[in-house]
Amino acid sequence: MAKNKINTSVLSGFVELLPQSQFVFDTIKSTIENTYKKAGFVAIDTPTIEKSEVLFAKAGGETEKQVYRFTKGENDLSLRFDLTVPFARYVSEHYADLVFPFKRYQIGKVYRGERAQKGRYREFFQADIDIVAENNLSIMYDVEIISTIIKTISKLTSDFNLGNFKVRVSNRKIWDGFFSQFGIEDSKKVSAVAIIDKRYKFKTEDDFKAELKSVINDEKIYNLAIALLKIEYLPNIGISIPENHHSDFAFIKDNELMKQGITELETVMKFLPHNAVVDLSIVRGLDYYTGTVYETFLTNYPEFGSISSGGRYEHLCDFYTDKVICGVGGSIGLSRLFVPLIEDGKITIDKSIMDVVILPQNENCYKMATEIQDELNAKTNAKVSTIFENKKFKKLMEYANKINAKFAIIIGEDEVANNTVSLKNMITGEQQNISSTTLIDVLNKTLNK
Amino acid sequence: MAKNKINTSVLSGFVELLPQSQFVFDTIKSTIENTYKKAGFVAIDTPTIEKSEVLFAKAGGETEKQVYRFTKGENDLSLRFDLTVPFARYVSEHYADLVFPFKRYQIGKVYRGERAQKGRYREFFQADIDIVAENNLSIMYDVEIISTIIKTISKLTSDFNLGNFKVRVSNRKIWDGFFSQFGIEDSKKVSAVAIIDKRYKFKTEDDFKAELKSVINDEKIYNLAIALLKIEYLPNIGISIPENHHSDFAFIKDNELMKQGITELETVMKFLPHNAVVDLSIVRGLDYYTGTVYETFLTNYPEFGSISSGGRYEHLCDFYTDKVICGVGGSIGLSRLFVPLIEDGKITIDKSIMDVVILPQNENCYKMATEIQDELNAKTNAKVSTIFENKKFKKLMEYANKINAKFAIIIGEDEVANNTVSLKNMITGEQQNISSTTLIDVLNKTLNK
Repeated sequence: MAKNKINTSVLSGFVELLPQSQFVFDTIKSTIENTYKKAGFVAIDTPTIEKSEVLFAKAGGETEKQVYRFTKGENDLSLRFDLTVPFARYVSEHYADLVFPFKRYQIGKVYRGERAQKGRYREFFQADIDIVAENNLSIMYDVEIISTIIKTISKLTSDFNLGNFKVRVSNRKIWDGFFSQFGIEDSKKVSAVAIIDKRYKFKTEDDFKAELKSVINDEKIYNLAIALLKIEYLPNIGISIPENHHSDFAFIKDNELMKQGITELETVMKFLPHNAVVDLSIVRGLDYYTGTVYETFLTNYPEFGSISSGGRYEHLCDFYTDKVICGVGGSIGLSRLFVPLIEDGKITIDKSIMDVVILPQNENCYKMATEIQDELNAKTNAKVSTIFENKKFKKLMEYANKINAKFAIIIGEDEVANNTVSLKNMITGEQQNISSTTLIDVLNKTLNK
Repeated sequence: MAKNKINTSVLSGFVELLPQSQFVFDTIKSTIENTYKKAGFVAIDTPTIEKSEVLFAKAGGETEKQVYRFTKGENDLSLRFDLTVPFARYVSEHYADLVFPFKRYQIGKVYRGERAQKGRYREFFQADIDIVAENNLSIMYDVEIISTIIKTISKLTSDFNLGNFKVRVSNRKIWDGFFSQFGIEDSKKVSAVAIIDKRYKFKTEDDFKAELKSVINDEKIYNLAIALLKIEYLPNIGISIPENHHSDFAFIKDNELMKQGITELETVMKFLPHNAVVDLSIVRGLDYYTGTVYETFLTNYPEFGSISSGGRYEHLCDFYTDKVICGVGGSIGLSRLFVPLIEDGKITIDKSIMDVVILPQNENCYKMATEIQDELNAKTNAKVSTIFENKKFKKLMEYANKINAKFAIIIGEDEVANNTVSLKNMITGEQQNISSTTLIDVLNKTLNK
């Protein structure tokens, strides 16, 4: 660092990308946005800053400690730590002006002062979808949320060569009904659910089982819980309980909550493609989920954990309005997943940050260069940059190479005299002298492929 | 507001739009972004939060008072109040990894705790372009910045029917040379420039002149200053001084700064289209500009003042690096211009927030509805939303109307049996029963127009 200068380093835990990486990140963000839009979700944006009393209506403990909170004048303010709470506030505030079922997406930055570590950022993008309505909402919207997430992740994994993925789907009502069936008290239930939630984080399945057993105590209930974790969805049959446990689970026919959970899960699975599987170890820690819950895992990148999760909630707006707003939503952890992949060079894309560089050879060629730039901007979608450098030809070509341009257009005094341009394909090296009309045709043909 | 509920109102001075208005705003933002990209600028993003010492390296006075500043742990932090200072920090920090001339755009939110009033927000979007290089930068890049701003504003005014606009261009060197020619001391020069800067805010030109005269004092210098304000650019002739003043300005041939300023201004004007005019009353208050400066005005909306401004600077990075980075830039005040226009209904757009609504008539039609949704998402760019409501046909059509869908696809039991859909054009009312293949053709043809 230079002497007497201010240290310019970005704050620890904050992401800043070089232009090429930013281009990849923005391409990924557009892909998500475009898929969300096509699936029927409309954009909203909410302020980054909210009143603290709004954000902390529900949050507590760990989250509250991480929040960027400050006063400005007489206002107690905070930066949003997720997009869900601001959305609940938005729906409550604009209730009268929204059309329900209201399907919205929001892609934006959120802030958490977590301990900085790879893939954990203090400022990061979330990409959320939610569907909300008053009083009740068809289970088909749970299908829609998960199906939109599957479309989005399919597109991303295919565009960026990230391999296969699985969506694990469950329903909280099944566990809620199960634990109340056996009169398990709340604190014990919470502990058991927390262990189930961490199932795949235990070193071995035996470690997990031992931990679960130590909390549930009762051998019979423990065995049933383990059996529940094995249920799966079979097309044409539905939710299937392991055969040797059929009689043990006879009580379900009188357990409304479990019955309802199983029916809902069955409906959801009936409409989802085969990369969705039932897995009752998905419970989602956050207490606002009340029905369907899901998490998503990349087969080749287990280290990321769940890259998208969400579910059904019934009481999100209770702090702000008397209306009963129920909803279902999902979220993709855009920065957490893609920033490390981009930084590690795991993602490459075919598109170029710059399509064409125009290189006028000297001042006599500037007029023509700006005319060509204007014409290409008006008649093509090409990204075009003109460089006015009065440097040797070799230096100019080096520039075109450095910014990865696909084409260079060389304009020298001969070209000005003949009203033509020299078009060089930077990948093949092929060069041709053509009219500006031909130039537009060539670029439109090559770049819109 | 409901009893015992938290007040959900958005903070004063913060913008939050309903979905339809958000769609218009996002369309405008995309238009700007797309024009910037095509003109050769690449995207960067910087954190919203910076160290206060970085942001306040240059700022002072009013700006510093408005900033959202707070501590988190041991860090003294602030929300960015513009995109220029973070860009200077970015260039200094990543100097070794950037290719120069470096052309970047950045569209992002900035924060200022100003007194809230219409068109002045505390969180607002700026849309900036800058070109920077080390040591020197051709005057042609000043042309490129203004030309890109003209392309962008042309596209916006044409797409959204905002009428004509003018870009007023000047060069600070002309005034700097002028005042030093007559040995005007710095404090008097600053006052005079401040009055010139506000020329169009005076009630009458006479008020302006009286104020200017009271500061300059000397009758002869005052008269020359007024003459300078009349110079214009004439194609094929160049910068033209009013005829009756030719001998008074004979000193210019020995005034290097004025000569350079005039030559630069002439070069810039030579390459710009006719809606750019010379106007020496444009000086830009900010002290970092050193050469070309410009401001932009909508003919039909003088109340907005300048909607885009910028210019040439030479010392922006001096606080962060020993390298001499010079640059030229421009900025469009996205929120300040468009949020009031949208809220006042002055902007309407042709595009729809939703293209197609699929309306299955009952549960037996859900499977086909989801299949049609998936097929349209895979094979068209249409924005498609399926509604699972089990409501009367009339209610469903009301929904399609409320969200302004262009088409409704009705799927009843007959359609399921025949494997067809009923496609209703919501604008013409025309309805046809067609196969899903025909459906895709119709939508691709109609929506991609």
